[in-house]
Amino acid sequence: MPYRVAIGLSSFGDKDKTPKKILEQAGVEIIPNPYNRRLTEKEIIAHLKGIHGLIAGLEPLNRKVLQSASNLKAIARAGIGLNNVDLEAAKELGILVSNTPDGPTDAVAEMCLTVLLALGRQLIPSNNDLHGGRWKKRMGIGLKRIKVLLVGYGRIGRRFGELLRPMGVKILVTDPLATPKNLEHDEHSVTLERGIQEAEVVSLHANGAEIILGQKEFQKMRAGMILLNSARGELLDEGALLQALENGKVAAAWLDAFVQEPYSGQLTEFDQVLLTPHLSTYTRQCRRAMEEEAVRNLLRDLRTNEMA
Amino acid sequence: MPYRVAIGLSSFGDKDKTPKKILEQAGVEIIPNPYNRRLTEKEIIAHLKGIHGLIAGLEPLNRKVLQSASNLKAIARAGIGLNNVDLEAAKELGILVSNTPDGPTDAVAEMCLTVLLALGRQLIPSNNDLHGGRWKKRMGIGLKRIKVLLVGYGRIGRRFGELLRPMGVKILVTDPLATPKNLEHDEHSVTLERGIQEAEVVSLHANGAEIILGQKEFQKMRAGMILLNSARGELLDEGALLQALENGKVAAAWLDAFVQEPYSGQLTEFDQVLLTPHLSTYTRQCRRAMEEEAVRNLLRDLRTNEMA
Repeated sequence: MPYRVAIGLSSFGDKDKTPKKILEQAGVEIIPNPYNRRLTEKEIIAHLKGIHGLIAGLEPLNRKVLQSASNLKAIARAGIGLNNVDLEAAKELGILVSNTPDGPTDAVAEMCLTVLLALGRQLIPSNNDLHGGRWKKRMGIGLKRIKVLLVGYGRIGRRFGELLRPMGVKILVTDPLATPKNLEHDEHSVTLERGIQEAEVVSLHANGAEIILGQKEFQKMRAGMILLNSARGELLDEGALLQALENGKVAAAWLDAFVQEPYSGQLTEFDQVLLTPHLSTYTRQCRRAMEEEAVRNLLRDLRTNEMA
Repeated sequence: MPYRVAIGLSSFGDKDKTPKKILEQAGVEIIPNPYNRRLTEKEIIAHLKGIHGLIAGLEPLNRKVLQSASNLKAIARAGIGLNNVDLEAAKELGILVSNTPDGPTDAVAEMCLTVLLALGRQLIPSNNDLHGGRWKKRMGIGLKRIKVLLVGYGRIGRRFGELLRPMGVKILVTDPLATPKNLEHDEHSVTLERGIQEAEVVSLHANGAEIILGQKEFQKMRAGMILLNSARGELLDEGALLQALENGKVAAAWLDAFVQEPYSGQLTEFDQVLLTPHLSTYTRQCRRAMEEEAVRNLLRDLRTNEMA
């Protein structure tokens, strides 16, 4: 049967036509997002009339919405988080739900590399100086022989390690699931305590909402270390970080994730803290990867549901 | 015999003791730079009295200086350029001269990667925004499937290619000396003309003082391209670049080398142009690598001269 697939994402196939083409080649009729923005509950209910599959963004897919979508067989979220989907209701209604856990891996790992290199080389102050008429050579730190602790060794931590290796970085890993067997041959599994004492760079790639770096951990760190957090704002105690920046324990830091977003806290007052608005996955390539993964998931689930 | 070795560099062994230790283990007496800055002709003449070997910076080593240094047998420049050494006079006087062509390779290639990633991800405007209280997600460009043209495929161009490969970059090479045989299996040798038409990023790694990118070349480039110049200011026509920035042919650029240094020209007026003060080799690791290479060269040449 010819499926009707609605797009919930505010943009789809804008930068790269590949995901759209895959749907078209499968004989699917595509109903674009009519507003090019996140849909409200009322709008998504109207949008899902007569629809078999949804490429979902963050629009509310609660029980009421799902119950009203009587033809819906599959939801493919282009992204990782599924907080906007009532998974229990979907299960009861026989709607298959998928997400795209692989899509963001490369983009986030590349972003971690970007900021680590930029901080080490003092790119921002050097560029500001020269734009302001000051010619001042600052001594930087390259990556060779630097010790980097990866806190968490899932998809992104592992990929970041892969990108660091060709530059001669010494990689330490702390993760309850990391065993010598699933580490690369030149990576070392350490306890968090030993890792933060040894590493010149600590990069957070963990899940969960518990603080990993609190006052005690900042006190144990090497003086002059660099901290990277692309994962979750909840993983570190911001007050302890502010103190560590003031006493020089932390020489520089980058945060892309915050407990409260948009972020407008005290870290904005530190020049040596790079801040970005949760945009690690905002690349042309990552958008395409997530859209393509979502499209393939959706077609698979529509066929599965048809056969069932 | 116990050699006396003078240091011409304004700093030596500051960040890492390895180069100093190698000299000490060879039984050498080290005479440090007494002023911790570049020496004048008069000062270097005094510094070289009774000296057998020199770890050289950019102090003037002209005929007069070399003639007055009656014990000098070897000069090891910690760096690539030898413009400050009268090579003819050195040869006549039996002084062996070396430089460190490998030292800067990693640091310059890493710096090229740093700025390419930072420009692609809009790191500087995003960081400025958030420090200024604005939460604005800008869409970036990652490196996957991006076409990068390396203009020049010597040590640095080749190393930059090695760093780009793990991120899925498509590498084009233009170099009269690049043949399919000395390219990596996934790199493509192209003419400059074809390369600048295809590439989204053009990175200069050539020698010489002739303009490679002039008005004609900028006109042929892909609209919205990114230009990197870590090599020499003379390789591009600055007027043509300014025009290409104004008409959007060049979306963003980075320059670390300029015809006239310190640089204070019109490029400082463009936010989308990253400028750094010729500091690609200014890393702790690169300093050590160059100092270590120079020390090994010097000891080799002192022994060679002793045996002759």
